[in-house]
Amino acid sequence: MMKDVQTLYQHGTLALLVPGLFDGTITTSDLLTHGDTGIGTLAGLDGEVVIINGQAFQAAADGTVNAVTDEMTMPFASVHTFDSQLPTTPVAAMTMMAFTAWLKQFAGLKNAFAGIVLTGTFNHVHVRVAPKQVKPYPPLTTATASQPEFTRNDVTGTVIGYFAPELYAGVTVGDFHLHFISDDRQFAGHLLDFAITTGEVVTQVLPNLLLHLPTDNADFMHADIDLQGLNESINQAER
Amino acid sequence: MMKDVQTLYQHGTLALLVPGLFDGTITTSDLLTHGDTGIGTLAGLDGEVVIINGQAFQAAADGTVNAVTDEMTMPFASVHTFDSQLPTTPVAAMTMMAFTAWLKQFAGLKNAFAGIVLTGTFNHVHVRVAPKQVKPYPPLTTATASQPEFTRNDVTGTVIGYFAPELYAGVTVGDFHLHFISDDRQFAGHLLDFAITTGEVVTQVLPNLLLHLPTDNADFMHADIDLQGLNESINQAER
Repeated sequence: MMKDVQTLYQHGTLALLVPGLFDGTITTSDLLTHGDTGIGTLAGLDGEVVIINGQAFQAAADGTVNAVTDEMTMPFASVHTFDSQLPTTPVAAMTMMAFTAWLKQFAGLKNAFAGIVLTGTFNHVHVRVAPKQVKPYPPLTTATASQPEFTRNDVTGTVIGYFAPELYAGVTVGDFHLHFISDDRQFAGHLLDFAITTGEVVTQVLPNLLLHLPTDNADFMHADIDLQGLNESINQAER
Repeated sequence: MMKDVQTLYQHGTLALLVPGLFDGTITTSDLLTHGDTGIGTLAGLDGEVVIINGQAFQAAADGTVNAVTDEMTMPFASVHTFDSQLPTTPVAAMTMMAFTAWLKQFAGLKNAFAGIVLTGTFNHVHVRVAPKQVKPYPPLTTATASQPEFTRNDVTGTVIGYFAPELYAGVTVGDFHLHFISDDRQFAGHLLDFAITTGEVVTQVLPNLLLHLPTDNADFMHADIDLQGLNESINQAER
C-alpha cells in the first residue's frame, strides 16, 4: 500500500485540554498507525511526546526521556507519515524566532498545514515540560502555571512539529508548535527557544487534516468549552 | 469494503469564501467518492448544492433546481455517507428554530460534528440562494449582499446539513448549516426557516473530520484571510 504522506492526523483538540480533559483517549499503537512522525502529550498531561521514525518518546517533568509503550494513551496528539522523497533545505545559524519567520516565507506557510522536521547541531536548546496531573484534573492554565524548563548546550537533535494556519487556533496550536529530541534521546520537550548552528529542514505541506474526536468519551461530549477565554488560556499555556 | 459512516469529509473552508476564493477546486465526481449525503456550492458561488442518495442537485438563483454533473466543480462542500442503520426519531410540528434547539438537547450536540437528515411534510419552507459571481470575484459579503429568497407552502422534502461545534466556526459554519430539497426536486436552497408538520430525523454523530484543502490552488495558498472580520462576514452572509 502506498503510504499517505498528504495527511495530518490529529486526535483530540487543544481546546479540550483547556477545561482539563486530560483523559487518554487514543492508544499509542493506534496513533502510530496514522503516522511515524509527530508530537503529543500523555494522559494526565504527563509530559511532552515526540514521535520520530515510528518511535514515541516522552519528555517527563523530571527531565528524563522515556520510551512510550503501545498501551499508553494520549488526550491530544498529531502525526503524519514523513515523506522521505522531499528535498531537504540547509538551515544557517539562527534563533528559533528567526527560523520560523524564515521558514514561513521560504516555504509559503500561510493557509495550509505543514509538518516540520529540522535536524541539526544546536548551540542552545530551551524546552519546557508539562507536569503530570491527577484527577480531578485542573484547567490547563492551572496545570501549566508552573512548568519545569530545561536547557542544553551543544546538542545534536531533531525539531519535530507543525505549522497550522491561525484559522485552526483552538483546534490545534496556531502558527508553529515544535518539540525537540536530542540524538542521544536524553533531552526533549516543548520548544521555547533554540539557537541552531547548522542543520537541514524538510517542510511537508499536508493538504488533508484528519481530525478524530473522542466521541465515546462522555466528559468530552458534555464539556463546556469557553471559547471566549480559549485563545487567552492557550497563549498562556502554550507560549 | 465497509462504508465509512464515521467521517465528515469537507473540501475547502468557509473562511476561503470570505475574500472571494470561489474557484471550483474539487469535481463533483471526486466529492461523491467521499459520501452520498451533503451540501455545498458550485464554482463562482453558483447556487446551493444538496447531495441526497448520492445525487447532487443545484438550487440556482433563478429559482430552478438542476442536476449537478460529475465534472462540475465546487470551492466548498461537505459530505458524509448516510448510515441507514441508525434509528429515526419522530419530529412534531415546530419551526426551524424550535427544531434546532430541540435536536441539540435531544441528540447531545455540543462538541462533535453531526450529519442531519430530516424528512417530512412542511407547512412552509423559506430558502435563499447565492447568486453566481463572475471573475474577478468580489468578497463574500458583496456577493451575498442581495440574495434571491424563495418560499414554498405544503411541501414534502428533506433537510440535509450539519451541526458543527462553535470551535470550528470559520473552518465551516458553526452550529447548524442546513439546506432543503423538495421530494419533487423542484424547490431547494439554503434554509432560512421552516415550519414542519410531521417528520423524522436521523442524527449521525461523525467522530472524524477529513478536511481537504486546495493546496494546488495558488490563490488559496497566498490569500490573505482576515480573521478579525471573518466571523462578522460569515454571520452576515450565512444568516
